Amino acid sequence: MLAAIREAAGDIWKYSDSEHLSLRKALADHHGCGIENLMIGEGVDGLLGMAVRLVVSPGTKVVTSLGAYPTFNYHVDGFGGVRISVPYSHDREDLEALLAAVQEHDATMVYFANPDNPMGSFWHEDDVARFVDALPETCMMVLDEAYCECGPAEAFPAIDRFLDRPNILRFRTFSKAYGLAGVRAGYVIGEAQTIAAFNKIRNHFGMPHLSLVAAEAALADQAYLQSVIGRIRDARDEIARIARKNGLSPLPSATNFVAIDCGRDGAYSRAIVEGLGARGVFIRMPGVAPLDRCIRVSTGLSEDIELFARELPTVLQALD
Amino acid sequence: MLAAIREAAGDIWKYSDSEHLSLRKALADHHGCGIENLMIGEGVDGLLGMAVRLVVSPGTKVVTSLGAYPTFNYHVDGFGGVRISVPYSHDREDLEALLAAVQEHDATMVYFANPDNPMGSFWHEDDVARFVDALPETCMMVLDEAYCECGPAEAFPAIDRFLDRPNILRFRTFSKAYGLAGVRAGYVIGEAQTIAAFNKIRNHFGMPHLSLVAAEAALADQAYLQSVIGRIRDARDEIARIARKNGLSPLPSATNFVAIDCGRDGAYSRAIVEGLGARGVFIRMPGVAPLDRCIRVSTGLSEDIELFARELPTVLQALD
Repeated sequence: MLAAIREAAGDIWKYSDSEHLSLRKALADHHGCGIENLMIGEGVDGLLGMAVRLVVSPGTKVVTSLGAYPTFNYHVDGFGGVRISVPYSHDREDLEALLAAVQEHDATMVYFANPDNPMGSFWHEDDVARFVDALPETCMMVLDEAYCECGPAEAFPAIDRFLDRPNILRFRTFSKAYGLAGVRAGYVIGEAQTIAAFNKIRNHFGMPHLSLVAAEAALADQAYLQSVIGRIRDARDEIARIARKNGLSPLPSATNFVAIDCGRDGAYSRAIVEGLGARGVFIRMPGVAPLDRCIRVSTGLSEDIELFARELPTVLQALD
Repeated sequence: MLAAIREAAGDIWKYSDSEHLSLRKALADHHGCGIENLMIGEGVDGLLGMAVRLVVSPGTKVVTSLGAYPTFNYHVDGFGGVRISVPYSHDREDLEALLAAVQEHDATMVYFANPDNPMGSFWHEDDVARFVDALPETCMMVLDEAYCECGPAEAFPAIDRFLDRPNILRFRTFSKAYGLAGVRAGYVIGEAQTIAAFNKIRNHFGMPHLSLVAAEAALADQAYLQSVIGRIRDARDEIARIARKNGLSPLPSATNFVAIDCGRDGAYSRAIVEGLGARGVFIRMPGVAPLDRCIRVSTGLSEDIELFARELPTVLQALD
């Protein structure tokens, strides 16, 4: 993949293909859908902004979970939407409560991440499908599957399952398991007419040539992806082991990070985040209670995890 | 610059700096302004969309020129703005008429490109400054200087001249003379508070790491830029010579293309564009009368221009 980038660098004086045909064809082959079911964009963040713009205007009701992905909220607020936030239940987004909120408020959009960020939890595909079946057609569902490559297969409905539903948009990215956060390439999968609507508002020449080349090369190397996923699993296990060893409770994770329950309040979690930060270990934490009893530790290379293992006890001791 | 890209490729697993500090510092040094006066974005197209979003809502009046940059119109239409289009005068955007239209319609935004696309003409910086001085503060000016590196110095007011004006935004790009169309990097220069407003709506992680690296490396190599500008000038002269030799009238150009007056109507110009296209020469033409009596030929390598010189007489003969 790096070789593909280095080889393609000589072409960057040219505008890239505004239709992204080559990458869309490769993704269509990979997923068994049509290129008309796919739109590429500048990361999931950018695509979320476009999806919000498609249906949200001042006063539009949008349902999400309290503590879920803040960048989705940023876009909703930016277009004047009114957010209704449903609490998590048992550290998962609460599908039943999300549906009830959509119905109660006659919401135009609902956000659901599977697997979830920041808790790392997931729902079975049958639960997701039941939610989709029950969802009013007047409500656009943002199904954020950014972490899908890291999760169990049973969490993900087949790609063709919702392709006839104009109100279901599935978001995927090359930033997580594919390891290409720096190229800013995400894509959305959906019913053809809904996908076509992105064409009326997107920045047609927004994707750099090298990002398209890198994403396509990464997609082509599924063996490498599988090896990365294996390493992510090992790293999750190791992070969980370190957490337990330090008297903390790691949550099961279907993502490339592990949420660790530190057993106290947000102030305590924040002190751990800051303590580790001061010692060169950058981790994050959920923004709201009760999720903020946890810290969120990303998987990394062995030396990163060793550093975490070495510094965590020191930080915890200093806080006792 | 290619070396910088190839070297940086190994870093693309990381998210890029969402503040683009390194490139903004380099641009601030280059232009003698503050980093708070600069915002980077996914090409001028993407930045234009954000600028429009900042001030345009359904019904907002926006003034531009009839036949000027269509992507600006695309964004205005996308946010529900009402466009008022002023005809060109003598193949230049008509500053006086643009100002009159702003005043008559109490417009919230006005677009002006200097140098102009698609005609290649320009206005003197004193004319631009007079326009700015006369512009109501309630009207945001989009001063599109995408082609500035190709134009004469006298066309461009000093960067610090408008930095205290909250309603003047100047757009620049690495896609033209810097030769980096494929990396999608543009920037906007303006008063600090206005620039800060972009931060409330932009896609913070929209810029790929390699695009930032490439733009910064290109900016650092001003000697190379000057050599490119010299080659653009030579190519313009050569294209003009070929046009004259074929009985057509090249317009003076302050850009990296030459508009050639073919002396008849849009149908004739289109037939030339299509005839050349069929023979492997890709050129463009303005979209509306009377500008569409012209074809628009981009500068290129010697072999590209030789191909144009070879095929143009054949195409013209076939049309006679």
